[in-house]
Amino acid sequence: MTEPLVISVDAMGGDHGPAVVAAGVARAAGELGEGVRFLLHGDEAALNQAVAACPGLKGRAEVRPATGVIAMDEKPAQALRRGKGSSMWNAVEAIRAGEAGAAVSAGNTGALMAVSKLILRMGAGLDRPALVASWPGARGVTSVLDVGANVDCDAERLVEFAILGEAFHRAAHGVARPTVGLLNVGSEEMKGHEEVRQANRILREGVFDLDYRGFVEGDDLTKGAVDVVVTDGFTGNVALKTAEGVFRFMTSELRGALTSTAMAKAGALLARPALKAFRDRLTPRVAAPLLGLNGVVVKTHGGASEQEIADAVHMAADLARSDFAAQIERNMSRLSDAVQAPPPPAADGAA
Amino acid sequence: MTEPLVISVDAMGGDHGPAVVAAGVARAAGELGEGVRFLLHGDEAALNQAVAACPGLKGRAEVRPATGVIAMDEKPAQALRRGKGSSMWNAVEAIRAGEAGAAVSAGNTGALMAVSKLILRMGAGLDRPALVASWPGARGVTSVLDVGANVDCDAERLVEFAILGEAFHRAAHGVARPTVGLLNVGSEEMKGHEEVRQANRILREGVFDLDYRGFVEGDDLTKGAVDVVVTDGFTGNVALKTAEGVFRFMTSELRGALTSTAMAKAGALLARPALKAFRDRLTPRVAAPLLGLNGVVVKTHGGASEQEIADAVHMAADLARSDFAAQIERNMSRLSDAVQAPPPPAADGAA
Repeated sequence: MTEPLVISVDAMGGDHGPAVVAAGVARAAGELGEGVRFLLHGDEAALNQAVAACPGLKGRAEVRPATGVIAMDEKPAQALRRGKGSSMWNAVEAIRAGEAGAAVSAGNTGALMAVSKLILRMGAGLDRPALVASWPGARGVTSVLDVGANVDCDAERLVEFAILGEAFHRAAHGVARPTVGLLNVGSEEMKGHEEVRQANRILREGVFDLDYRGFVEGDDLTKGAVDVVVTDGFTGNVALKTAEGVFRFMTSELRGALTSTAMAKAGALLARPALKAFRDRLTPRVAAPLLGLNGVVVKTHGGASEQEIADAVHMAADLARSDFAAQIERNMSRLSDAVQAPPPPAADGAA
Repeated sequence: MTEPLVISVDAMGGDHGPAVVAAGVARAAGELGEGVRFLLHGDEAALNQAVAACPGLKGRAEVRPATGVIAMDEKPAQALRRGKGSSMWNAVEAIRAGEAGAAVSAGNTGALMAVSKLILRMGAGLDRPALVASWPGARGVTSVLDVGANVDCDAERLVEFAILGEAFHRAAHGVARPTVGLLNVGSEEMKGHEEVRQANRILREGVFDLDYRGFVEGDDLTKGAVDVVVTDGFTGNVALKTAEGVFRFMTSELRGALTSTAMAKAGALLARPALKAFRDRLTPRVAAPLLGLNGVVVKTHGGASEQEIADAVHMAADLARSDFAAQIERNMSRLSDAVQAPPPPAADGAA
């Protein structure tokens, strides 16, 4: 834990430009301490200027010139063809080259997935990296995956998400033994489609080193019934966007209500600090790892603020310093045993 | 439209007992006018007393004694075996017997689906009735289906939901030409799994009399991007429960914030009418039809209040008086043509 960690940053990703990325990295640098250093990939002149403006980066950040930038609307296939030498490509390549322990980007998600997969390769049996959402809820943060690109998931993929998500939650949130649930339309064993029922059976068999709690439902995401909620990328994406939609709609309706009359406005003014605390508590964390790769890659959204860049750097450091990869590997080898082995002769009751 | 309509009510369904159901029916009776009459199924003594307590039901409600009640936790299979003669069974049976134009129940959803399907049979090719949720959003109410029991849906099922939901939305909300979207993880044509992509192709071919707008995403549910959102019962159930969870969590957090300090409390007091309007606007409508049956069956939740019972009766009357069933039949016959017919020889561009 005391050996120096290098975090490789795509400083051109993000809508606010390299100065905000550098300022976010500087903020994280101050909090993470001297043991962490940074590679900043991107436009040399702009980055030298941005680094010079951040005293906290002095002696701790190295600018790595990169000529190209992958645009936010570029298709993953285009990014693979034309992205070599770009700030994103080089940020990820530094992990493969052994120069960095983790990478951070606020760039195009699809491109980052494709580039990371090509350079680092998948450690798990997944087709594409799994994306985790961190949901604010009644009992803290719930990690939900996949909310990304794995639209068709068989039972084995779902079990992989459980393994990846559990290790991520421990590393990112310091929960020693995260609980895991499988998203379904009811909590009884016979509910749902074949894929979730089979994944439930595999997880129930208990060959994995994880605390599996069975099926959970949509409203358990905010109740915090379990720490990690596993689902396919289709359902997870719809659930995440639905929740974001409800959040935005309610926030906007509330604003409308509290400006509708003079009395309501006066009330809102008095309640302002409380309303601000309410919003802060409910705002989701935008940093998200791409799970299943041979290496730690954290993405944050394009519009990331200085604080959100700093948060993504923190997450990258937490994951890189944890035993995360080894834990995943141990459970993954048990999964291939569980899937390949014929059922034991006297195990009728186990399924 | 002027001929008398009879609505058959399971007066024993619901947690608050027959007196609340009767009061809810009486409220709707007053609003719907003399052209609508009611059959109330359930315990004779209790219902006679409840009806006597509601002057508005005088001469318009007939009590139909039923001995059994299907419990809220009864399994659908049990309800089918033991439910004959119960208030729910008889309420639905009155439609088949030609005595009523629609039925309403606040009882066990699974049992109501099973009993309705057995008695009325499916008019569509569905295995089970589709359930519609009415979502409050930025542009009024969005109808989302299926949020119920159809967990595995092929492309043809999804197209059926589009047909059912469109006709429902027009009948229930008076929108002449509701727009329809298909829930997916992105709006581009190549996104999502095979079932949604194929359903999109069938709907795009345009043989149906409906205004199909293509793919929508989770956050479009509250944006009101389209009037009717179509999805499989697994995704729809998760999305609905996720939205309910976010709504409850935010409401509870808001309450917590507004009672956290004396200033916040004073503010909340001033803003009280505005906050109440906010809540009312966001509270979802709990009445929901079971779509695809040969007959109109509306369910409302077990804890339905007098007003919510009245709302379900209104929905039943709107559906029974509309051209709903004939519209569905017309589009359904086009669906079987579209699915059975080989693609036209020169239609390469259409897929």
